[in-house]
Amino acid sequence: MEINYNEIMAFTNIMVFPHKNPDGDALGSAVAVALAMKNLGKKAVIVIDDVINFELRYLLEYTEFISYEDALDRINSVDLAISVDCGDIKRLGRRIELIKGKPLWNIDHHFTNDNFGDYNSVDTKSASACEIVYNILERYEIEITKDIAEALYTGVSTDTGNFMYSNVTTRTFDIASSLLSKGIRRDMIVRELYQSKRKNKVKLFSKCLLEAEFMFENKLAYSVIDNDIINEIGCTFNDAEGLVEQLRDIENVCVSLVFREVFDENVNELITKVSMRSIGDIDVAIVAKELGGGGHKAASGVELKMPKNEAVKKVVNSIGEKYFK
Amino acid sequence: MEINYNEIMAFTNIMVFPHKNPDGDALGSAVAVALAMKNLGKKAVIVIDDVINFELRYLLEYTEFISYEDALDRINSVDLAISVDCGDIKRLGRRIELIKGKPLWNIDHHFTNDNFGDYNSVDTKSASACEIVYNILERYEIEITKDIAEALYTGVSTDTGNFMYSNVTTRTFDIASSLLSKGIRRDMIVRELYQSKRKNKVKLFSKCLLEAEFMFENKLAYSVIDNDIINEIGCTFNDAEGLVEQLRDIENVCVSLVFREVFDENVNELITKVSMRSIGDIDVAIVAKELGGGGHKAASGVELKMPKNEAVKKVVNSIGEKYFK
Repeated sequence: MEINYNEIMAFTNIMVFPHKNPDGDALGSAVAVALAMKNLGKKAVIVIDDVINFELRYLLEYTEFISYEDALDRINSVDLAISVDCGDIKRLGRRIELIKGKPLWNIDHHFTNDNFGDYNSVDTKSASACEIVYNILERYEIEITKDIAEALYTGVSTDTGNFMYSNVTTRTFDIASSLLSKGIRRDMIVRELYQSKRKNKVKLFSKCLLEAEFMFENKLAYSVIDNDIINEIGCTFNDAEGLVEQLRDIENVCVSLVFREVFDENVNELITKVSMRSIGDIDVAIVAKELGGGGHKAASGVELKMPKNEAVKKVVNSIGEKYFK
Repeated sequence: MEINYNEIMAFTNIMVFPHKNPDGDALGSAVAVALAMKNLGKKAVIVIDDVINFELRYLLEYTEFISYEDALDRINSVDLAISVDCGDIKRLGRRIELIKGKPLWNIDHHFTNDNFGDYNSVDTKSASACEIVYNILERYEIEITKDIAEALYTGVSTDTGNFMYSNVTTRTFDIASSLLSKGIRRDMIVRELYQSKRKNKVKLFSKCLLEAEFMFENKLAYSVIDNDIINEIGCTFNDAEGLVEQLRDIENVCVSLVFREVFDENVNELITKVSMRSIGDIDVAIVAKELGGGGHKAASGVELKMPKNEAVKKVVNSIGEKYFK
């Protein structure tokens, strides 16, 4: 956790980089870092290269976000790059090109992180990158303003499933308490993150849950999403995010699967993307790896070059053979 | 908050009473109090007069629960009654008969509480009765064992919507942190409370959300549940609990309504029970009261002696006239 604070504080013109397709923790920690640096009199902007999810849009109000193209114009004067919540430098996507030759401060909590920065604040025991940023600000007595606290609360909440996941520690609650004491608009944050669900996303989830298939005495549950459903509801494949967890959280379910059949223009055929979740002793990563995918014991995925029906058969059979025979 | 601790500690045979239809906070605080008293060498049992909700059943494992009838047999030897989480003594139902003439310790956090006990630990600023029990145990240096901590965490979590509601304070997080430090099985608790949803309840919610009607530019959302849906899904009207909040939490929705059409054998006709929720400036209690119901600004209800279609028209028109003209 100890970084060379004096060296870092000598830099004055900073770009902050959350990972691609940033979640609440990536954006929250980026905003907090940028604001803290600005409050110390430095220049700091956040560089993003994606569309920001609906529920996170409030984070765009706190400070300056610029695009890859704008960053290209400005990169010459930058003397420090900070990556946040990136378990691997590749998670920056093409923005890696921007920071070549620049000193890099890597702030992250993923166990995959190989300390790719020149300065590394990597703590795999932290539930979120925002916890690490909080620790840094506290350690070096940098003021945590209300705005910074709101950004940090976002990551503390989202990366723990709002205090549901097993990564929550006493420190997580201690930090949440401290952030709340800064007078943050917690009700606004909760409403934006969790209580402003898009209607069509709710409809997609509802349709998929209503039509979900249950097998092996309800121990396995799966939903299939194809273009027809997407068009009928009027949503995108991205709207399925979170569905596989909702399936997992039904009584008796130990393995949940979501199959998304999409037309892959690169190979000119239908492919099926499979998300897998499990609880208890079941290791979906083994099955995912056998089929050419990857991930962790409880959360894995694979892309299969076949239409949905074949993919369902293949994955369900693999899991059934291994765990439900 | 100060009670006469020495007087209370002189009692040795205790019955603990959570409110009728106990939720996680009522049961959690009852279990915590009973265990703490037992650890101090006293006799303590919990008296319940209801079926316990599926997701709370794990709480029945920690200590002795007895029925109203069993309590009748044992009440003579009891020298202290403790009510927990009861905003009004009437919330004990017929168990009030059991405690007549006994000293009563009233532990509660509802603003309606009129200090009906002989000893009162009422703190309306606490988000849960479990917070109050925690404060008492800490104040009088009574050991918070792992079991007690698990019971308390249940109420701290459920009465705040797992740290979502605006009643959460820094103290709530501080207590959560302290309880976690006791080595509680937080993952088990989260799974039991929130991640073991009954399949048919999920299907009912999904069907209702999929078929929900949206009016007044999506500011009002409603679902209708009748016997046909209940039979089709294979669930009960009680399974609709929580649905009206899910409708409220869709983008742009300011008022959500759930209509349940049931056959009332007392009057031999169809009646419709209406649950109402609102956010922001809209006061559904006004509409509910006009129609003969009651409740609070953001959460009200009414029973209408008419079938569902008439009830929908009546309520939607009333709200539309008042707020969306």
